[in-house]
Amino acid sequence: MSAPRPGTQRALLTDLYELTMAAVYLAEGKNDVSTFELFVRELPESRNFLVACGLEPALEYLESLSFSAEDLDYLGSLEIFGDALLEFLADMRFSGDVWAIPEGEVAFAQEPLLRVTAPLIEAQIVETYLLNCIGFSTSIASKAARVTLAAAGRPFVDFGARRAHGGDASLLAARAAVIAGAQGTSNVLAAKTYGLETSGTMAHSFIQAFESEREAFLAFARHFPDRAIFLIDTYDTLEGARIAAEVAGELASGGISVRAVRLDSGDLAELSRATREIFDDAGYSEIQIFASGDLDEYRVAELVAAGAPIDAFGVGTQLTTSADAPFLPIAYKLVEDTSGPKFKLSTGKRSYPWTKQIYRAADYDGYLMDAVVPAGHEGLIDGRALLEQVMVSGKRSVSPPSIKDIRDRFERSLGALPERLSSLEPAEAPYPVELHPDLER
Amino acid sequence: MSAPRPGTQRALLTDLYELTMAAVYLAEGKNDVSTFELFVRELPESRNFLVACGLEPALEYLESLSFSAEDLDYLGSLEIFGDALLEFLADMRFSGDVWAIPEGEVAFAQEPLLRVTAPLIEAQIVETYLLNCIGFSTSIASKAARVTLAAAGRPFVDFGARRAHGGDASLLAARAAVIAGAQGTSNVLAAKTYGLETSGTMAHSFIQAFESEREAFLAFARHFPDRAIFLIDTYDTLEGARIAAEVAGELASGGISVRAVRLDSGDLAELSRATREIFDDAGYSEIQIFASGDLDEYRVAELVAAGAPIDAFGVGTQLTTSADAPFLPIAYKLVEDTSGPKFKLSTGKRSYPWTKQIYRAADYDGYLMDAVVPAGHEGLIDGRALLEQVMVSGKRSVSPPSIKDIRDRFERSLGALPERLSSLEPAEAPYPVELHPDLER
Repeated sequence: MSAPRPGTQRALLTDLYELTMAAVYLAEGKNDVSTFELFVRELPESRNFLVACGLEPALEYLESLSFSAEDLDYLGSLEIFGDALLEFLADMRFSGDVWAIPEGEVAFAQEPLLRVTAPLIEAQIVETYLLNCIGFSTSIASKAARVTLAAAGRPFVDFGARRAHGGDASLLAARAAVIAGAQGTSNVLAAKTYGLETSGTMAHSFIQAFESEREAFLAFARHFPDRAIFLIDTYDTLEGARIAAEVAGELASGGISVRAVRLDSGDLAELSRATREIFDDAGYSEIQIFASGDLDEYRVAELVAAGAPIDAFGVGTQLTTSADAPFLPIAYKLVEDTSGPKFKLSTGKRSYPWTKQIYRAADYDGYLMDAVVPAGHEGLIDGRALLEQVMVSGKRSVSPPSIKDIRDRFERSLGALPERLSSLEPAEAPYPVELHPDLER
Repeated sequence: MSAPRPGTQRALLTDLYELTMAAVYLAEGKNDVSTFELFVRELPESRNFLVACGLEPALEYLESLSFSAEDLDYLGSLEIFGDALLEFLADMRFSGDVWAIPEGEVAFAQEPLLRVTAPLIEAQIVETYLLNCIGFSTSIASKAARVTLAAAGRPFVDFGARRAHGGDASLLAARAAVIAGAQGTSNVLAAKTYGLETSGTMAHSFIQAFESEREAFLAFARHFPDRAIFLIDTYDTLEGARIAAEVAGELASGGISVRAVRLDSGDLAELSRATREIFDDAGYSEIQIFASGDLDEYRVAELVAAGAPIDAFGVGTQLTTSADAPFLPIAYKLVEDTSGPKFKLSTGKRSYPWTKQIYRAADYDGYLMDAVVPAGHEGLIDGRALLEQVMVSGKRSVSPPSIKDIRDRFERSLGALPERLSSLEPAEAPYPVELHPDLER
C-alpha cells in the first residue's frame, strides 16, 4: 500500500456542525446553490504579504470527496443522524464551481483566495478541510517567501519533517516551501508525493557510529562518491573541518571530490569563515559550506549581511511550523445565495457580501494596488483579474500546473511586489487593497 | 476506502539522510544493536511541564513499518541507492525494543520520553517520524493541560480542525487535547479514529441561510430536539439571546428544551452575563452558555477569574497549533551501542551518554523531584521508574491503553504536580530534574 496523498480519504475530516447543518438543510429542502469565499481576515504582524498556496491539494480533496461505507457506518453509530442524511451522503460528490487565485501568486488580507459555488450542503461540508489545507499551505509559502528574500539568491532546503505537525503537515510544508523558493526537501515522502528534489547525507549519529570522524567521512565518500557532504560539528567544528580537508586530500587521489561540509551548531558566521579559510588554505576552494541549525529568515539575513561564506542553508522547524505566525486568521463565509447577498456583523469578524473578483493594477515597476469588487463590475476596473475558474461542476477545468510552473509564478509575483514590502520588517505603508463601496453598504 | 490512521503507510516519511546513512551502514556491515533516546532539550518559556503524548500513534507506526513496492520503485528512481539497500528495505520490519514514559504522565526537559534499542539501521530510519509524532502530540497535550488548569473544572472542547497544520495534525491534536483534559472534539474523523466524543451544532452560515435567526433556531430544534444549541452572535448577540429565549418558550410547549447558546465573538465576559440575565429573567436558568472565539488558556483563565457565567469553552486555533510554542526542541540521539556510551558536544546541543532511566520521588503531597540515571543504577534510587517497556522485538508487550486510561493517568499526574508549576505563569523555581554525575563525565 502506498501512502495516501493529503486530501484524499478525508470526507470525515469535517466539523460535526457541518453535518448537523446538512441534516437540517436536507430536511428543510434548503440546498440551493450558494457561494462561499475563503479569505484571510488580516495579515499577521510579521507578514507584509501572503503567497497563495494549497489549491492543488484542495482540488484533489474536492475531486475525490466521497463518504465510504465505513464512514457512513461510523456516522450511523453516533445516533445523531437519520437515514435521510446518510443516504444523501452516500451519493454525494462535490459538484460545484471553484474559482481561485493561482498558487504562487502574492495575495493580501480580505482577498478571496478561493470561491466555492455549490449546492449549500456540499459547500458547507467542505469548509473545514478547505480552511485547513489552504490556510496551512498559504501560511508556509508566505514564510518560505521571507526566507527566499533573506537568502538573497543563495539556495535553501526544507529540513522540517521532524518538527512538522504530523505527517500531512510535513508533506504540505515541503511542497509550499519549494513553491516559494526552497530548492528541495529532506523529506522523502514529500519528494515522492509532489515531485520535489531530495536532499541529505548524514546526521551526528553517523559520525558517532564510527570510531572517528575520519572513518565516518571516508566510509560515506566510498559509498556515495558523488554526494560527499560531511557534517563537521559533532565534536569540535574546526577540528572537524581540518579532518574533512585531510580526507578530501586522500579522496582526491582516488578521483573523489568532496562537495561540501555542513555546520549545524555554534556561531555560524564565525565558523563558516574559519572553515572557509581551512579549505582555501588546503587548496579546496570548491568545497562548499552548508549551514543549518535553528535558522529562520532573520538569522539567514544576518548571515548574508555579515558576508558569511555559506553557500546554502537548511531551514527546518521555523519554516515548517511558521513559528512566528503559526496560523492565519482564515475564514470561509457565505457571501451570496439565491436570495441575494449575505453578510455577517459579529464583532471583529464581519464578512462582506456578494461574490467578488480581485483586480490587480500594475505598471512596469510592478504591482500598484488591488481592488476587491462585486463580480459583474468587470468593465469598470483596469487590471488583471486574480481569481480564475479552476473547477466546473466538480471537475477541473484547467490541467494542474507543475510545481515548476507554480514556482515560476511565485518568482514573477514576488519580483513585482513593491520594494517596501520585500523587507523582513513590517512595511510602514501596507499594500493598498481597496474594497468596492458596494461591499460596505 | 477508509481514512488511514496517522503513522500507517509512512515508511518514506523519513529524511533522506536516514537512508543514505543506512546504505553506508549496510555496506560497512555496521548494523549492531544501538540505543537512541528521544527527549526535549528545554521547555519553552511558557511551559512549566510537558505531558508525554504520541506514544500509541508512534507504536502504530513502528508496528506497521514496511516499504511498499511503490516506495522502493521510487527510491530506485532517485538513482542514489544500490540494489543492496533496496533489497534490505523490502524485508525490513521494526524489530527493536521500546521503552517509554506512558502517555498522560507529566514529564520535563532532558528526560527520555522514548528509548529505542534496535539494529542501527532500523533505529536510524524511524528517527524522523518518531520525532514528528511524539514531539507534536506532546506539544499539544502540554498546551491542553494549561487550558485544563485555566478552565478550573469547566469543560472545554477542541475546535481546531480548520486551523490545524494539515489532516494528521487535526487528528493527533484532537487526541492529545482529549488526553489532557478536553471533553471532546468537533473533528469527526478524529473522533472516529481515536474514539473521542464529538461536539457541534451550527455555524454562522446556518443562521444566514434562513430568513431570520428565529427560523434558523426553530428549524434546528425541530430536527435535533436533543441538541438544541443556538449560535446567537451572527448579527447582534443580545438580540440573538432574546430571540433564543422566545424560541425556547415556543419549543417548551412542544416538549423541546433548549440546551445552550454559543457566543463566538465580542466581550465574552460581558455578553455572557447579559445573556445569562436574559435567560434567567425568562425562567430558563437551565439553558447553558457556551463560549468560543480565539480562546487560549489566558483568556479562559480571565473569563473564569471574572466570574463569567460560561458553562463550557470551545478552544480552537491556539490549542491545535500550540500557537505560543508551536514546536518543542525535541531530539533523538544515539546514547549507547555495542562499543559503549555515546555523546555529542555540539555547541548548545550536547547529548548525554548511556541508556537512561528516570526515577520520580513523591510524597503524599505529590511529586518532589526526578533523577535521570544510567540504567543499571536501579538499586541506588528511591522512586518510581517512569520508563516502561512497551515493545519487545518489534511487538507490543503491553496492550494499548484506552484514551480513558491515558486521561486518568494525566489527571493523577497533573494532580501530583507541585502547585507552583500549575500556574500559567513561568514558575520561579523549575521542577528539579537531577542528572546523575556519571552522565556528565
